[in-house]
Amino acid sequence: MKTAEEYVESLKDLNREVYILGERVEDFVEHPILRPSLNALAMTYQLAWEPDHEELMVRQDGKGRKVNLFTSIHEGTDDLINKVQALRLLGQTTGTCFQRCVGWDALNTLSIVTYEMDAALSTDYQKRFLDYLSYVQEHDLVCNGAMTDVKGDRNRRPHEQEDLDLYLRVIERRDDGILVRGAKAHQTGSVFSHEIIVMPTLAMRAEEKDYAIAFAIPSDSPGVLHILGRQSSDTRKLEGVSIDLGNANFGAHEALVIFDDVFVPRERIFMDGEVEFSGRLVETFAAYHRQSYGGCKAGVGDVLIGAAASAAEFNGVARASHIRRKIAEMVHLNETLYSCGLACSLCGNAEASGTYLVDVLLANVCKQNVTRLPYEIARLAEDIAGGLMVTMPSEKDLRNPKVGHYIDKYLRASSTSSTEDRMRILRLIESMTMGTGAVAYRSESMHGAGSPEAQVIMIERQTDLEHKMSLAKDLAGIGR
Amino acid sequence: MKTAEEYVESLKDLNREVYILGERVEDFVEHPILRPSLNALAMTYQLAWEPDHEELMVRQDGKGRKVNLFTSIHEGTDDLINKVQALRLLGQTTGTCFQRCVGWDALNTLSIVTYEMDAALSTDYQKRFLDYLSYVQEHDLVCNGAMTDVKGDRNRRPHEQEDLDLYLRVIERRDDGILVRGAKAHQTGSVFSHEIIVMPTLAMRAEEKDYAIAFAIPSDSPGVLHILGRQSSDTRKLEGVSIDLGNANFGAHEALVIFDDVFVPRERIFMDGEVEFSGRLVETFAAYHRQSYGGCKAGVGDVLIGAAASAAEFNGVARASHIRRKIAEMVHLNETLYSCGLACSLCGNAEASGTYLVDVLLANVCKQNVTRLPYEIARLAEDIAGGLMVTMPSEKDLRNPKVGHYIDKYLRASSTSSTEDRMRILRLIESMTMGTGAVAYRSESMHGAGSPEAQVIMIERQTDLEHKMSLAKDLAGIGR
Amino acid sequence: MKTAEEYVESLKDLNREVYILGERVEDFVEHPILRPSLNALAMTYQLAWEPDHEELMVRQDGKGRKVNLFTSIHEGTDDLINKVQALRLLGQTTGTCFQRCVGWDALNTLSIVTYEMDAALSTDYQKRFLDYLSYVQEHDLVCNGAMTDVKGDRNRRPHEQEDLDLYLRVIERRDDGILVRGAKAHQTGSVFSHEIIVMPTLAMRAEEKDYAIAFAIPSDSPGVLHILGRQSSDTRKLEGVSIDLGNANFGAHEALVIFDDVFVPRERIFMDGEVEFSGRLVETFAAYHRQSYGGCKAGVGDVLIGAAASAAEFNGVARASHIRRKIAEMVHLNETLYSCGLACSLCGNAEASGTYLVDVLLANVCKQNVTRLPYEIARLAEDIAGGLMVTMPSEKDLRNPKVGHYIDKYLRASSTSSTEDRMRILRLIESMTMGTGAVAYRSESMHGAGSPEAQVIMIERQTDLEHKMSLAKDLAGIGR
Amino acid sequence: MKTAEEYVESLKDLNREVYILGERVEDFVEHPILRPSLNALAMTYQLAWEPDHEELMVRQDGKGRKVNLFTSIHEGTDDLINKVQALRLLGQTTGTCFQRCVGWDALNTLSIVTYEMDAALSTDYQKRFLDYLSYVQEHDLVCNGAMTDVKGDRNRRPHEQEDLDLYLRVIERRDDGILVRGAKAHQTGSVFSHEIIVMPTLAMRAEEKDYAIAFAIPSDSPGVLHILGRQSSDTRKLEGVSIDLGNANFGAHEALVIFDDVFVPRERIFMDGEVEFSGRLVETFAAYHRQSYGGCKAGVGDVLIGAAASAAEFNGVARASHIRRKIAEMVHLNETLYSCGLACSLCGNAEASGTYLVDVLLANVCKQNVTRLPYEIARLAEDIAGGLMVTMPSEKDLRNPKVGHYIDKYLRASSTSSTEDRMRILRLIESMTMGTGAVAYRSESMHGAGSPEAQVIMIERQTDLEHKMSLAKDLAGIGR
Repeated sequence: MKTAEEYVESLKDLNREVYILGERVEDFVEHPILRPSLNALAMTYQLAWEPDHEELMVRQDGKGRKVNLFTSIHEGTDDLINKVQALRLLGQTTGTCFQRCVGWDALNTLSIVTYEMDAALSTDYQKRFLDYLSYVQEHDLVCNGAMTDVKGDRNRRPHEQEDLDLYLRVIERRDDGILVRGAKAHQTGSVFSHEIIVMPTLAMRAEEKDYAIAFAIPSDSPGVLHILGRQSSDTRKLEGVSIDLGNANFGAHEALVIFDDVFVPRERIFMDGEVEFSGRLVETFAAYHRQSYGGCKAGVGDVLIGAAASAAEFNGVARASHIRRKIAEMVHLNETLYSCGLACSLCGNAEASGTYLVDVLLANVCKQNVTRLPYEIARLAEDIAGGLMVTMPSEKDLRNPKVGHYIDKYLRASSTSSTEDRMRILRLIESMTMGTGAVAYRSESMHGAGSPEAQVIMIERQTDLEHKMSLAKDLAGIGR
Repeated sequence: MKTAEEYVESLKDLNREVYILGERVEDFVEHPILRPSLNALAMTYQLAWEPDHEELMVRQDGKGRKVNLFTSIHEGTDDLINKVQALRLLGQTTGTCFQRCVGWDALNTLSIVTYEMDAALSTDYQKRFLDYLSYVQEHDLVCNGAMTDVKGDRNRRPHEQEDLDLYLRVIERRDDGILVRGAKAHQTGSVFSHEIIVMPTLAMRAEEKDYAIAFAIPSDSPGVLHILGRQSSDTRKLEGVSIDLGNANFGAHEALVIFDDVFVPRERIFMDGEVEFSGRLVETFAAYHRQSYGGCKAGVGDVLIGAAASAAEFNGVARASHIRRKIAEMVHLNETLYSCGLACSLCGNAEASGTYLVDVLLANVCKQNVTRLPYEIARLAEDIAGGLMVTMPSEKDLRNPKVGHYIDKYLRASSTSSTEDRMRILRLIESMTMGTGAVAYRSESMHGAGSPEAQVIMIERQTDLEHKMSLAKDLAGIGR
Repeated sequence: MKTAEEYVESLKDLNREVYILGERVEDFVEHPILRPSLNALAMTYQLAWEPDHEELMVRQDGKGRKVNLFTSIHEGTDDLINKVQALRLLGQTTGTCFQRCVGWDALNTLSIVTYEMDAALSTDYQKRFLDYLSYVQEHDLVCNGAMTDVKGDRNRRPHEQEDLDLYLRVIERRDDGILVRGAKAHQTGSVFSHEIIVMPTLAMRAEEKDYAIAFAIPSDSPGVLHILGRQSSDTRKLEGVSIDLGNANFGAHEALVIFDDVFVPRERIFMDGEVEFSGRLVETFAAYHRQSYGGCKAGVGDVLIGAAASAAEFNGVARASHIRRKIAEMVHLNETLYSCGLACSLCGNAEASGTYLVDVLLANVCKQNVTRLPYEIARLAEDIAGGLMVTMPSEKDLRNPKVGHYIDKYLRASSTSSTEDRMRILRLIESMTMGTGAVAYRSESMHGAGSPEAQVIMIERQTDLEHKMSLAKDLAGIGR
Repeated sequence: MKTAEEYVESLKDLNREVYILGERVEDFVEHPILRPSLNALAMTYQLAWEPDHEELMVRQDGKGRKVNLFTSIHEGTDDLINKVQALRLLGQTTGTCFQRCVGWDALNTLSIVTYEMDAALSTDYQKRFLDYLSYVQEHDLVCNGAMTDVKGDRNRRPHEQEDLDLYLRVIERRDDGILVRGAKAHQTGSVFSHEIIVMPTLAMRAEEKDYAIAFAIPSDSPGVLHILGRQSSDTRKLEGVSIDLGNANFGAHEALVIFDDVFVPRERIFMDGEVEFSGRLVETFAAYHRQSYGGCKAGVGDVLIGAAASAAEFNGVARASHIRRKIAEMVHLNETLYSCGLACSLCGNAEASGTYLVDVLLANVCKQNVTRLPYEIARLAEDIAGGLMVTMPSEKDLRNPKVGHYIDKYLRASSTSSTEDRMRILRLIESMTMGTGAVAYRSESMHGAGSPEAQVIMIERQTDLEHKMSLAKDLAGIGR
C-alpha cells in the first residue's frame, strides 16, 4: 500500500495532457485549482495508515496481503457495509467527494461480469481482469471509472448518431489490441487517476458491437486529453486567500476526457462486442455506485450539519427552538440516507463470481433519496446560516487596513468567537451549497450514478408488483 | 409452541371483562367486531408452523427448545434484522397490525433493565424476569405491553395531578405483593393477550416511586377491565357483509384498560420504585418499538401498493405513465421505511445483559419516517383509486335485485375483471386509508411508540453534534 | 329567494327514487344518514337571509331582483372573488361540503358555452338557457351538476365501449325531446337537488355526437334513480348518538345517478351533438369548479385547524412550541389554498357572453394545491390530536353506568374542560380525517373537479412555455 | 422621469466610497463586477418609457404628474396588484433582483407611519416625508431601504450590546440635525442608489430611543462607506468572457454599509425616539416587502423554467414525459408564489394615511412559500439540466484552438442547436442555482424581508385562532 506522499509522488511522472480554463497545464499536481482535489484523493491513502481507521480502510487480497480498501473486492455483506461506513468517514474528513469510489465500483463490477461472460461465452476475460486487479492492488493505484458517454442526440441510438464518435467506440481492431475514439463526460478525479477503466454507458444492441467495449489504460496513454470542468467559484483558489474558500484543503474535480484514437492492448480489454452483457455491466456498476452515495454524502452531510450548528453558535442562536428543530431535521434526513446505504448492503448477495453485490432495488431507493434529501439539508443550512453568507465582504476586505476594522467590528456576533471564525464557517456553508463544494454535494447527489429518472425506472423494474397485487387481492377476497 | 387453533382455544377459558359500544361482551372470541383482530394475532402462531416461514418465525430458548419468535430474546444483530423481516411478512399477510410486537418488545426491554437494576442495586429482578420469560415461552403466550398512561394534565408531573390515579401507581404494599390502580390507554391487542406487562410511561423522579412500577399479570386478573376503542367504520363488521369491509379477515383493536385495585404477586414485579431506571426502561422499549414499525408498516405498505396497482389494473389505467410513476414513488417510500428498520437493527449492540438493542438514533429516524411516509403512500393510493372509492354504493345495493344490476352494469370498468372485484379492491383501499385499517396504517404510524415530537427530541439527544461541529470547524480552518 | 325551511319543505313533494344501503328509502328528507347533508345545503339558503352575510350571499338577476348567490351569473372579477369568500364562509359554517357549487358552476358554464354555440352555429341554446336560468333563480332551486360518466374501459373512447351506455347518451330523438340512457357517478348532493344539469364528461369526437349532450331535468324525472354512495362511518348516524358523529349536524352525500331511458323536453336541451363545443364546456366547468375548492376547502380547513387547536387546549399542550409551530404551518398551507382561489378569480376575464371566467392556469394551480395541502393539514391535525382519537371508547361506553365513570375519570386531561368536550373535539377531527367528513375534506379535494393528473395536463397546456424559453435564451445571449 | 441613460449618468457625479475585494474602486459605474447590477436597476427606468409597459410602470403623483412606479404611493388595491405584476415583468426581463423595491417599500411604509405618529404625538413627520417624497419623485431617484442592523449578540437587546454601535444609533443631537453611527448589512443595490432611507430593525423599547431612528440621506454623504459583499463566481465577470457568466448583462449586489458618524439634517428625519412606533414601522415594511417577492421571484422563476425547458430542448429530451411533468411542476410552484403575491394585494386595505397596505397574514404566507418553493424549482432545474452544467469546460477552453474543436464536437447534442448555445443555457441555470444569480434567487428568497422564522411568528400572530376554535367547538357540539 502506498502512503499519501508516495501517491502524490507517483503522479508526478505521468505525462498527462491537462487543460484548465483554456490553457494546457504542465504541473497539474501543484495547480491551485486542482490541488484540493488531490488532497481529498490522498486521504484515501492516508487513512489506511492510521491505526484508528485500519479496520475500515484496509483489506486483504486473495493471497492475504494487505491492500487499500479502494482496490478490494467485496467478499461478503460485511464488506459492503464496511464500504458505506468507510465512505462516510472519508466524507466527514474531506467534506467533499474523494473521487476514488468510481474506479473501485468498476473493479467490482468487472469481477462479476467478466466471470459471467466467460461462463456463458467461454471467453477469458476473468483471467485478464484478475491479472489487472493484482497489478492495481500491488501498486495501490487510483482508477477512474469512465462510463458516461457524451451521448449526442438523446433520441438516437449510438449507431444512429450523425457523428458516430459520440459514444466511445472501437475504430480499428489489430492483432495486439484495439484503437478507440470518443469522449467520456463528468470524469470525477480523472486527472489524478493512474488508470482509466472504460465501460459502456448503456445496454447495447446487436448492431452496436463496437460500442460494447470495456478496458483499462494508463491515464496518460497517448491520445488521452483531460479538459477540466469549471465549478462555481473555482478561481477563488487563484486569489491566494483561505477564508473565502470555505474548505481550503479539499475539493474534487470532473473532466471531459477525450480519447483521440487511443490504443488499448489486448490484455487490458474486458469486453469487446458482447452486447448481451453490456446492460448487466451498466446495471451492476450503477447499483454499486448508487450504494456509495449512502455513505459519502452522509459524511459530507455531517460536515454541513456541523457547519450549520457552528454558524448558529457563532450567531448566538444555538439554543433557539426553531434552530434546534431544523438541525434535528437535518440529522434525520442525513441518517435516512445512511440507513438506505446500509440496508442495500446488508441485503446484498453473492453473484456467480463470488463477489457480493448490493440489493439492487434498495440501492436505487438509496440513490433516489440522495437526489432529494441533501437539497433539503442544504436549504436548511442556508436558512440557519442567514443572509450574511452571501452578502459578506471578502477576505481581502477584512485584511484591508482601511476597512478591515469596520468588518471586524460590525460582523462580530458573540464575545466568545471571532469575526474571522464566523466568516470562515459561513464561507464553508457557502462553498458546500453554492460554491465548488456544491458540485460534490448537490450536483453529484443529483446526477452521479445516474439521474433521478434512472432510479425511478429501476425501482419500477425491480419491484415485484405481481406479488404485492396478489397480497392485496387475497386480503380483499378476490379470486377465492 | 401453540398452533393458531390452540391459541384461539386458550382464550376461551379467560374470564375477561370486555366492553364494546356500551355493552359487556361475554363471547369476545367470536364477536364480529373483534374477530378480525384475533385472526391477525393468530397469524403469529400459524406462520411459525409453516415450513416456508419457520426460519423467520421460530427461535430457540436458552435450553435449545423451539419457541415462537414473539417470545424470544434478541441474541445478535441477526435476530434484530430477522425481527424486521418477520414483521414485514406478517404485515403483508394480514394487511394490518398483528398486535404481538408490543409485548415482545416489553420482554426484551425487561431482559436488559432487570439485569442492570440488579447489577447496580443488588435486587433480584433478573431472576424473576427469567422465570417469567420461561413461563411465557413454554406456554407461547401473547403479552400485552402496557406503557402509555392516560396522563391527565400534561403540564403536571404524575404526583402533581389532582387525581393521583392518572398515572398507574401502587396504592398498597403487602408482604406478598402490591395493589395497583390506574389505566393504560391505547392498549393494542389487550383483549386477546394472555398477559399484561405493565411499564412506567416516562422517567420518574424521586418523589414518584409509586409510579416507577413494572410487572406482569394475567389479562383477566380481577379488577382489570377492557373498554374497546371504536374505529372508523367498525360497525360494518356487524352488517353481515364482506365486500364493504375491505379486509374482512384481519384487523386490530385497541382498548382502554382499567386497573381497578389489581393485585400483583411479588414474583411478577420487575421494578418497584427504582425511579433512576424508569427512563432507561422507557427509552429502551421505545427504541425497540420504533424499530418494529420499519418492518410491519412496510409490510402493510406492500399491501396498499398492491391494492393501488390492482385498482389501476381494474380501472384499466395500469400502463399510464403517471400511474406507474406514482406506484414507483410508493415503493420508493415504502422501501425507505424498511431500509431504516434494517439499518437500526444492523447497527445494534449487546447491552450488559447480553440482549441486543437497536441503534437508538437510527430507530428514532426510522419511526420519524414512519410518521410521514405512510401518509404520502396513502395519499397516492387514494389518488390512484379514484373518487369511486368513497362514492360507491354498498354491498347490499349490489345484492339488491332492483338496483344491483345497475351497479354491476355501470361500475364495470374492464372486460377482464368483474364489478365486484373492482369494488372489493377499492373497499380495501378505503379501509386502509379511512376505515378500520387506517387506525393501524395511519394513526399507529403517527403515534405508536411515541408521537413524532418524541422522536425529534430523541434525535436531537442522540446526535453527537459536537463531533459534527469539530469536523466543520477543522475544514473551515477554525482553531488551527 | 327561499328560506331554509321553504327549501326543506320544497323537497318533500318530490317523488324521488332513492336507495340507501340496499333499501329503497321513501322519507329521504328525514333519513338520519342523509339529514346532515340536507342541513349543509340548507345553510346556503339560511345565510342569504342573515344581514351579516347578505353582501356575500345575495346577488341580483338581470332585472334587479335579489337572487340567491348560487343561482347568479358572474358579472365581474368582483363576483368571482366574492364566490371564493362566500364558499369559505360556508365551509367554516358547515365544516363540510355544502354541495351547491356544482350546479352553480354548471349554470355559469352554460351561460358561456350556449352563447358561443349560437354565435358559431346559429343555434338558439342561449335563449333556452336564459329561460331556464330565470326559472331556477325565481324558484331558488338547487341544481346538481352532473358531469362525470362512469367511463367503463378507460382505454376506449365512448363509442368504442362494449356497452355503449357507459357514457350517458341519446338513445332516441323525438320531436318534442330526446330519450337518454346512462349513469353519472359521484353526484354530490343529487338527492336534495331540485334539478339535474347533465353535461358531457370529455371532449367528444365527430362520431360521438350522441354523447355530446347537455340538458336539465327535474331530479325526480321518471327513470332517474339515486343510489347513495357509502362513506366511512356512515352508519354511526343510525346509532342515536351525537359525540361519536364528530360533526353531528352537517355532512354531504354523493350518489350514483342512473338515467334509465329518461325523457328530456326540447326546451331543456342546451347541447345536442355539437361535439366541437364539448371540450370547451368541460374545460370551462372544470376551471370554475377548481376555483371553488380554493374557497370551500379553506373554510373546512379553518374548522380543522380550530379543532386541532382546541384538542391541544383540551390536552393541555396548547403552548408547546412544536404544537404552535404545527398550527402555524396548517394556517400557512390553508391560506395558500385560499390565496390561489383568490388569484385565479382576480385574473378572470369576460368571455364573449359577458360572463366572467376565472384564469384557467391559476384555477388549475389552485386545485393542484388542493390535492396536496389538505392532506398535510389533516396529517398535522392527527399529529396534534394524539392517538386517543382512534382508541377512545364510544359514546355509549361513556353513558354506560358500569364503565362510564372510568372513562370520565381517566380521559380527563385538564381541570377546565370536561372529558365529554375532549371526546367531542377528537371525534370531530376523526370525522374530518377518516370518517364521513374525510370524504369531503380529503377525497373531494383529491378527485373533485378532476383528479390531480387532469390539472397537471392543463397546467402544461396553459403555460406559454415558448415565452419563458425566449426570456431565458435572451438572457443567456442565444440568438443575438 | 429619468431615462435609463440619464439614471446611469446621474450616478457618475456621486462621490461614493466603495470597496470591492479589498480595494477602493473609483469608477464603480463601469466596474465589471458591479455593472450587471446597474443594468438591472436601469431596467426600472427603461421599461417606464416603453409604451407596452407604461401602464404597469408609470403612476401619477398627487399633482397628476407622471412618476416612475418605484417612487409612487399605493392608492388602492389595484396599485398593490399592479406592483406584483410589474415586479414579475422586471424579474422576467432581468432574471435577477433589480434592487429598487426596498426603497419603494420604505417610502410607502413611511407614508403610513409618519401619518400615524403625527396623529398620535402631534409631530410633523408627515410633512417632512411628503416634501422628501416630492423630491424623490421629481428627480426619479433610487432609494436604498436600509433596515437590517448587524445585530451583534442575538441574545442581547440593542442597548445591552457590549459595543453599542451594533445597532445604528444617534450618537449626538444638534440643533440642525443628528449624528448617527452604525452599519446596515445586506444592503441590496446600495452602490447605485441616490438615497439611503434608514429604518429601525426591530421594535425598540423605552430605553432604546437612540435606536428608534428613521431618516434619509444621500448615499454619498460623508462617513458612508459601501463594502461589497462577494457572491459565488463573482470574479468570472473579470475574465472577459460571456458564456461562463450565464446571465452576462444582469445581476445584483449587496453591500455592508458603514455609517461612520454621519450627519442627518433635521428635515430628513422621519422618526427620532418614538419607540412605540418602531414595531409598527418594521411590520409594515416587512409586509410590503414580503409581498414583493410574490412578484419578482415569480418573474425570475419564469426565466429559470424557460432555461430548464430550453436545456431539455438542446439536450433533445423536451418531449420525455418525466421532463414535461417536472416542468409542469415548476410552473405549478411558480404560479403558487405569484397567486400568493396577488392575494395579499387584493385583500389589502387603506391605512389611516390613505396609503394601501397588503393583507399582513397573506403577505407572510406569500413570503413563507418563497422561502421554500424556489428551492424546489431550482432543484428541478438542476435535475433537468443534467450533470454537464457543473462539469462543462470553460468558455476559454471552447475558444482554445487546440481543444475547442473537441468540445464543439463532443458536447453537441442535437443537430438543430449549437454546442455554444447549449453551454450558454446551462451556464444560465448554473448562475441562477449556484452562481451570482443564486444569491438573488435562493438566498434572497430565503432571507430577504426576514428569514423564514420571522414569517412563522407573524403567521401565528396574525391568525385569529379563537375564531377557528369557536367554529370547531360549535360544530362539535361543545358549549351548547
